[in-house]
Amino acid sequence: MQASQDPLNNWIYENHKGVRYGLKGKVLVDERSSFQQITIIESERYGKSLLLDGCWMTAEHQERHYHECLVQPALCSSAELSKALIIGGGDGGTARECLRHKELKYLDMVEIDLRVVELSQKYLPTIGGSAWIDQRLHLNICNGIDWVANALDGTYDVVIVDGSDPKGPAEGLFNKIFFENCKRILKPNGVFATQTESPEAFQSIHIETIKLIREIFEFADPLYGSVPMYPSGWWSWTFASINSPRYKHPIKKRVDEISKNCEIWSPRWQKGAFDAIPAFIERELNP
Amino acid sequence: MQASQDPLNNWIYENHKGVRYGLKGKVLVDERSSFQQITIIESERYGKSLLLDGCWMTAEHQERHYHECLVQPALCSSAELSKALIIGGGDGGTARECLRHKELKYLDMVEIDLRVVELSQKYLPTIGGSAWIDQRLHLNICNGIDWVANALDGTYDVVIVDGSDPKGPAEGLFNKIFFENCKRILKPNGVFATQTESPEAFQSIHIETIKLIREIFEFADPLYGSVPMYPSGWWSWTFASINSPRYKHPIKKRVDEISKNCEIWSPRWQKGAFDAIPAFIERELNP
Repeated sequence: MQASQDPLNNWIYENHKGVRYGLKGKVLVDERSSFQQITIIESERYGKSLLLDGCWMTAEHQERHYHECLVQPALCSSAELSKALIIGGGDGGTARECLRHKELKYLDMVEIDLRVVELSQKYLPTIGGSAWIDQRLHLNICNGIDWVANALDGTYDVVIVDGSDPKGPAEGLFNKIFFENCKRILKPNGVFATQTESPEAFQSIHIETIKLIREIFEFADPLYGSVPMYPSGWWSWTFASINSPRYKHPIKKRVDEISKNCEIWSPRWQKGAFDAIPAFIERELNP
Repeated sequence: MQASQDPLNNWIYENHKGVRYGLKGKVLVDERSSFQQITIIESERYGKSLLLDGCWMTAEHQERHYHECLVQPALCSSAELSKALIIGGGDGGTARECLRHKELKYLDMVEIDLRVVELSQKYLPTIGGSAWIDQRLHLNICNGIDWVANALDGTYDVVIVDGSDPKGPAEGLFNKIFFENCKRILKPNGVFATQTESPEAFQSIHIETIKLIREIFEFADPLYGSVPMYPSGWWSWTFASINSPRYKHPIKKRVDEISKNCEIWSPRWQKGAFDAIPAFIERELNP
């Protein structure tokens, strides 16, 4: 699906169920890769911004709302931190947030679409930042579903899924076999993290995905925050683990290392964001 | 300012700094009152929806995000609950949330624009609901700034400010003299509540308003939530009190009475929403 454009007035939209979010700007790239439509605009408010299949993904000056919230609860709480995996995340923001932790030795990033990486490196270089030249980053252009199916048991301290909505290339990132493999390849004291859509704009996918992750992992909880450019602006990420809900307890040494450069995330914010489950979702999840 | 319309394609927008939020729908009313432009549309996603001066105010199926979060932390925590005041709130949603508390005996609502009330009663009757015929509601069509200047000391258990952005008729609801009067007319164990804009789309107004309220009241804290139709979708309300931060401690008897019919608000959600202050705002407020 192409981004909805109004070239006369320079507005670019994502449409979702009778609602649209538009940024004023100029289209720089609009091409079809083997997997999806990739659009990059120069927006007035948030700098260069990326859409995949007509959906807002990230922007230079709004990406931290998403990347800090997906990454830091996991990276700050895994018992060890030698090896991590990112499925998706082609813009580089998730890798950059992970690699802020000096303790991390090895980061596998598995992105299906080379063009997303190439165009992000060219047009949105600040989002990946130094991650792209970090020796610890191992970029693999292949299918993330196959990757988690083939990886050995207990390989990773952290597994992060940074995919788009469950249609198109990200569809297989929301099902039982995929999550079972994510658990299998995680170390017993590791942490799993994935974006779980909006409790408002994608209410049923949101609820069903959390329930599914809870069937597979011993501990799993959604965390709620704000990504203004996503449908409804209200977003969620779900964290899961095996031996204890360790994702709720960031390790002080890591917090001290990274928090002064965080825009959104802090241990206090995170504590609040786990509690701030709206009443209608809590009734669905804990009836 | 008029709502931005695209009548050919049935989109109605609020524009804010190079960003727009649009709902697909049909314009039902578009008139200028003595104070502002009033627009009501029938939207596909959220039912009938109200704009004032081109800014989204409320919608039938999205109003609880805002009204529950503004009202319940205050109404559930004031030591007594005999008399409350709403400044603004012409759509009736804040009054309806207040009057769910049987303990409340008398509610003054002070709205400057009679046409907002009349059109809300006609087109958005579910938002005010039974509040409009509740004997406890005393509707005063006059200036809220004068009302708080003239009210006697210690009149109200709760004072709620439900105004729009600080331009046009709501401009005087964001300054020192107004907040000082709100404190003066509050009982010593009462609670003050006001909407304090978006930490993202109105960052400096948000920060300055909280700082100002903190100069005047002994205790004041922002609470963060989501109103998808407002700029950025990320919104805040600030609660203040005199003898203790009682707004953080909802009274069990009142919680038991109202919480099963809440969509967003719960004591747990509220606790989280007070903690979920983003790092960049916390650094500004508590340097």
